[in-house]
Amino acid sequence: MSHPREPLTYTAAGVNIEAATEAVRRLAPHARSTFRPEVLGDIGFFGGFFRLGGAYRDPVLVSSTDSVGTKVKIAITLGRHDTIGIDLVNHCVNDIFVSGAAPLFFLDYIGIGRVVPERVEQIVQGLAAACRATGCALIGGETAEMPDLYAGEDYDLAGFIVGIVEHERIIDGRAISVGDVLLGLPSSGLHTNGYSLARRVFGIGARGGHPARDREVLATYEPALGRTLGDALLEPHRAYYPLLKDALPFLKGMAHITGGGLVDNVPRMLPSGTAARFDRGSWPVPPLFTLIQERGSIADAEMFRVFNMGLGLVVACRPTDVAAVQAVAPEALMVGEVIAQAGEVRVVLA
Amino acid sequence: MSHPREPLTYTAAGVNIEAATEAVRRLAPHARSTFRPEVLGDIGFFGGFFRLGGAYRDPVLVSSTDSVGTKVKIAITLGRHDTIGIDLVNHCVNDIFVSGAAPLFFLDYIGIGRVVPERVEQIVQGLAAACRATGCALIGGETAEMPDLYAGEDYDLAGFIVGIVEHERIIDGRAISVGDVLLGLPSSGLHTNGYSLARRVFGIGARGGHPARDREVLATYEPALGRTLGDALLEPHRAYYPLLKDALPFLKGMAHITGGGLVDNVPRMLPSGTAARFDRGSWPVPPLFTLIQERGSIADAEMFRVFNMGLGLVVACRPTDVAAVQAVAPEALMVGEVIAQAGEVRVVLA
Repeated sequence: MSHPREPLTYTAAGVNIEAATEAVRRLAPHARSTFRPEVLGDIGFFGGFFRLGGAYRDPVLVSSTDSVGTKVKIAITLGRHDTIGIDLVNHCVNDIFVSGAAPLFFLDYIGIGRVVPERVEQIVQGLAAACRATGCALIGGETAEMPDLYAGEDYDLAGFIVGIVEHERIIDGRAISVGDVLLGLPSSGLHTNGYSLARRVFGIGARGGHPARDREVLATYEPALGRTLGDALLEPHRAYYPLLKDALPFLKGMAHITGGGLVDNVPRMLPSGTAARFDRGSWPVPPLFTLIQERGSIADAEMFRVFNMGLGLVVACRPTDVAAVQAVAPEALMVGEVIAQAGEVRVVLA
Repeated sequence: MSHPREPLTYTAAGVNIEAATEAVRRLAPHARSTFRPEVLGDIGFFGGFFRLGGAYRDPVLVSSTDSVGTKVKIAITLGRHDTIGIDLVNHCVNDIFVSGAAPLFFLDYIGIGRVVPERVEQIVQGLAAACRATGCALIGGETAEMPDLYAGEDYDLAGFIVGIVEHERIIDGRAISVGDVLLGLPSSGLHTNGYSLARRVFGIGARGGHPARDREVLATYEPALGRTLGDALLEPHRAYYPLLKDALPFLKGMAHITGGGLVDNVPRMLPSGTAARFDRGSWPVPPLFTLIQERGSIADAEMFRVFNMGLGLVVACRPTDVAAVQAVAPEALMVGEVIAQAGEVRVVLA
């Protein structure tokens, strides 16, 4: 191929500019539906513009980036692409909300084997829906068609969020002390973590696997779940910002329970000398986790290190503020307390 | 595989947490080397913090996201990962600089088949070097190990930048008028665009290709280039911000010449009713482009639609300001002028 006789074009090299143009045309109205008054200009210039205004005395920008991991493999296998964007936005929103930040704007990156405009539109539709629900403007994005990197119609999806918080209102767990209560907010499923293990358990989405067989497994109705495995695994990541933002004055610390589970994420908000004790009977572990554990013969400790086990967010507050937090978010369950650290252990599952 | 008898673990499912931890340990000092006084806290919390301060009266945040496209395939084939991060940062810096914005902070996303800590460190080393050179803080990132999405040790690399500009100093080309001069800044090579076509021309980096043969092609000394093809193709994307920032008061519009070349990018800064006329003899087309065109028998028009053809940035200014711009950036060449638009054509290559 190094001396082709036919004149080469970009299209012949696997980059379909027409499909890309059509995708941009389709996604523009979805992006526009998320615009806030602070967004300047429109889609098409080199960057996205967000006018800050003067509402903050000492503004701190809080930013984060993440992907949805191999949850995309479930979406790709099922051919359902309108929720994976919700996962991405909500994951990012939670990551900045734990600092007390309110979302400002979001940008997405899609690396894809082949641009199918309808598919890209579905992905962006999900992004836009979650952006509207969390008050976040979708002001930029990039879709890169790379057939030599992504097989067939595979894609990867990453996102970037910027939020804002008044400097003196940053929540970083520093105020947490022994005796504080840990409240847990229910997750809606695996959120976006542990999919490599869950897929392995059910034998789906492997490189060089069998998409038709994978679809069959995902379409199986699981009595324990009351729905198909595919529906349960695709359930979008919840955003806790709309739910809990009015409780911010009462919250001393928050941990988003992502990869690493309670064991790795809760210590991220704990000051040194403290640890978290969870009472395992205090919240219901949803049946999806039990199903994964049984089918995979997975050890208990491994489950708690990989999955959220039913808690998507853990917050710390004073015992006297529990009622105030629950008045804002009645779903918040008392799941444990902050104790004095003994030895190396930061999280005790009692 | 759906009912494994051995207890499953996350590691068995292809996610190596130890390698990920080691990668984070290695990249932290590189990230820290980019920190500015505005960066609060340290690596490890859920988000990155940037304190804005009060230096701007009416601050506008300008953000952009991009990837390096299939230039990663060249880096992967050659096993040289310390410049691809420079490409990514500089591409993003240019995308916001064309609005007059100064970079504030950057976040990266690496999707990868297998986390090799040394390799991730090399990538981040490049990101950090370019961040330091452009005054940008590297305050966040995500590395996702996804063996079922990326083959072997393949990876994709995307980045996200936020910059700032005073509202009344936004440069958007609105002030451009007929008779203005177009100045071109030399590119250092393909920058990050057109790699799918260039790779096709030389027959390298295809899915299911022959890495050993690809390496041989890239190691070939090309007399026309005065170096190996691999060195020429890996040459990092230039950042124009450090070079041109002091010329901002004289610039009416700027276009970053990325995918789509002069033909698609220059019109993005032009007000309606105007077009750009380039004098093709006014700048030297570097030998790499000529080599690609000859080897691929690529039509002239296609070359100008895919590649930057030697100009990485085009700026517009008044004829009387040319000397002032060239005093700041002596490399800036007069390459054309703004003319009245006749018909649909926005870019004339004369």
